[in-house]
Amino acid sequence: MSIQFEIEATHGPARLGKMTTPHGIVETPVFMPVGTLASVKGVPQDLLEDLGVQILLGNTYHLYLRPGVETVRRMGGLHGFMSWNRAILTDSGGFQVFSLNELRKVTEEGVTFRSHLDGSSHFFSPESAMEAEIGLGADIIMAFDECTEFPAEPARARASMEMTLRWAERSKRYFEAHKQEVPWGSYQPSAISHQQKQIPRPLAPENDNDGGIQAGANQSLFGIVQGGMDLVLRKESAERTVEIGFPGYAIGGLSVGEPREVTREVVEATLQYLPADQPRYLMGVGTPDEIAMYAAMGVDMMDCVLPTRAARHGLLFTSEGKVSIKQARYASDPAPLDPACSCRVCTRYSRAYLRHLYAANEVLAQVLNTIHNLSFYLDTMRRVRHSIRLGEGARFLSGVSSQPKP
Amino acid sequence: MSIQFEIEATHGPARLGKMTTPHGIVETPVFMPVGTLASVKGVPQDLLEDLGVQILLGNTYHLYLRPGVETVRRMGGLHGFMSWNRAILTDSGGFQVFSLNELRKVTEEGVTFRSHLDGSSHFFSPESAMEAEIGLGADIIMAFDECTEFPAEPARARASMEMTLRWAERSKRYFEAHKQEVPWGSYQPSAISHQQKQIPRPLAPENDNDGGIQAGANQSLFGIVQGGMDLVLRKESAERTVEIGFPGYAIGGLSVGEPREVTREVVEATLQYLPADQPRYLMGVGTPDEIAMYAAMGVDMMDCVLPTRAARHGLLFTSEGKVSIKQARYASDPAPLDPACSCRVCTRYSRAYLRHLYAANEVLAQVLNTIHNLSFYLDTMRRVRHSIRLGEGARFLSGVSSQPKP
Repeated sequence: MSIQFEIEATHGPARLGKMTTPHGIVETPVFMPVGTLASVKGVPQDLLEDLGVQILLGNTYHLYLRPGVETVRRMGGLHGFMSWNRAILTDSGGFQVFSLNELRKVTEEGVTFRSHLDGSSHFFSPESAMEAEIGLGADIIMAFDECTEFPAEPARARASMEMTLRWAERSKRYFEAHKQEVPWGSYQPSAISHQQKQIPRPLAPENDNDGGIQAGANQSLFGIVQGGMDLVLRKESAERTVEIGFPGYAIGGLSVGEPREVTREVVEATLQYLPADQPRYLMGVGTPDEIAMYAAMGVDMMDCVLPTRAARHGLLFTSEGKVSIKQARYASDPAPLDPACSCRVCTRYSRAYLRHLYAANEVLAQVLNTIHNLSFYLDTMRRVRHSIRLGEGARFLSGVSSQPKP
Repeated sequence: MSIQFEIEATHGPARLGKMTTPHGIVETPVFMPVGTLASVKGVPQDLLEDLGVQILLGNTYHLYLRPGVETVRRMGGLHGFMSWNRAILTDSGGFQVFSLNELRKVTEEGVTFRSHLDGSSHFFSPESAMEAEIGLGADIIMAFDECTEFPAEPARARASMEMTLRWAERSKRYFEAHKQEVPWGSYQPSAISHQQKQIPRPLAPENDNDGGIQAGANQSLFGIVQGGMDLVLRKESAERTVEIGFPGYAIGGLSVGEPREVTREVVEATLQYLPADQPRYLMGVGTPDEIAMYAAMGVDMMDCVLPTRAARHGLLFTSEGKVSIKQARYASDPAPLDPACSCRVCTRYSRAYLRHLYAANEVLAQVLNTIHNLSFYLDTMRRVRHSIRLGEGARFLSGVSSQPKP
């Protein structure tokens, strides 16, 4: 028993689904906020719950370096460590090893890389990455893959894809042999040196499971399709990954510098080779327009640092387009950031105040900007799900825009 | 009609009071969190409301520089600008001009100083400081004073005290002539160039007034007692400030480097010369122990950056003493920060998680640490008020400790 995925309605290739994880239900298509270091930067967990976040993403590479897998495992995994009782997904670290390490060394066995923090040397193999992801204890974990660089020669793209396939098999083999080691059940306070009062479980919000994990519940390991920007390789990667067999499949290796049209083309070409009855996860996209578009194409899950990172730079997504809140034009603007938004930022604060907080480098700027951008992304996906349910493909993109304000 | 102050119970010199301001009731003795730039660094306003904050402090010097008084005034004053419907107090800028400006030049007319931001030259007089404080529109505003440096020669301390007295008279004169200019009533959207949707008033929490300011409501201007560490000068300053006549009095010029015992001595010596039926405000103190002690001595209002600033440095106040959350000993500690605390941090997160957030330089560390420290300060004052009501002086300091953990 790992995840269950149920498709409730379709509209063209788009699917409205319900994914049941050991830590609650996730309505799909879903956008997953990124909580790199077991925190969505600046936003307390109860506010994420209020926003309706049903699943968060954590980054194995970063958590492996800080605070370390063992620390998280002893606290009951990420759920216990960060006090988040809803679903979590971790990536495998493959992408960060690729994007943060100029000096990485890849062999058949795995990747040697240097910490971006202190330059110390580390090694990830499919087996050690799985060990880390099992220790972190997310509901959904990702196979260890090699993210092919862009651009890549055809021979290099094929070799990389073949490597990812071999690593997928090794990831699955290790996971199947060790999945019982997930820390959810085995977490015993007596294993901890200081016998102290425990944090009580937070009161379960509506969406949460009833505070208990079903006996026999497991993590789910998803496979990742690679193949660079070559549609033939993507087809082969998809088919052979499906052959290995996973409860869900991701499209990886995109958003690595290629033009947006190429991303779209690769996604479209790959989706058709992924099982219709299993969740499909597009990694690392995108703008509000794009996540709505990919959902329309049949993607069920997406994640991206864009809403949270842009928020830190004062770039805010609204129903009227992008707003750069640092601009002097907002200094005395009493209007809400987005008149159509009902988030706790737009219903309370003016653009003038948000502009002031940003200009004065106040921490509250990041907190409020992040809350709004996440709210906008989650609302976008809510509208998308609503449109699929109503069979209203034409209204799919209504109210969604990331164009600059005129 | 400005503030009303009602004493509900006493225990020795300690007083339990209720201060009714144009923006709601403040139960005293009260600790006022500092929101320097119209934000308590890192904490959204609704969480401050949840903490039970009834009055916030804003710094005129900082707000004058950023975003500027006129910007705040046009948004309805600080209440409208930062969407805070409860009471606010602003200082006069005198202390920041003193503490942030090595190169200030003081004359009878006022103080010329340089911005700590860009070195630009500015001038504060009692009149211009009052103009700024009226534009900011806090419920309680402070007379423009000169904060005497420590140590100071007797002649210098006297001269400085005399200056503050003359400035107090000028502050009062300007305030009385201009208090109708407070922006609460005169704020008209039509005065703003962009006719746009306004932010609705936040739903009034229990403690708030009913969303409307009483006709004829005004700000209240408090006087400030100076006199350095000289008890004779303090007595004279108190008596002559009371002679000028204000609805409340502050003890200023402390926490400027003098030993803690001297602070206590000066406070004790000064309090007896302040009217028993009016609020007494001790500026810029202190630790949890100290605020309880000063409340026991008859102080009604206090403010300090300590809980918020210490939080940013990972120093947390708990019922078991101070905790430096950055220490490695907390890395795997599953216990709540303070088992006796019921704040949203202590009921949800472990020390291990807080330690990780701090060590990883996550913004959430500042948010959560600040929430806890404020909660601890506010709880301390709640206990103090409870003890006064019960007449339990002996239990005054129970559960209050800022000693390092053994």
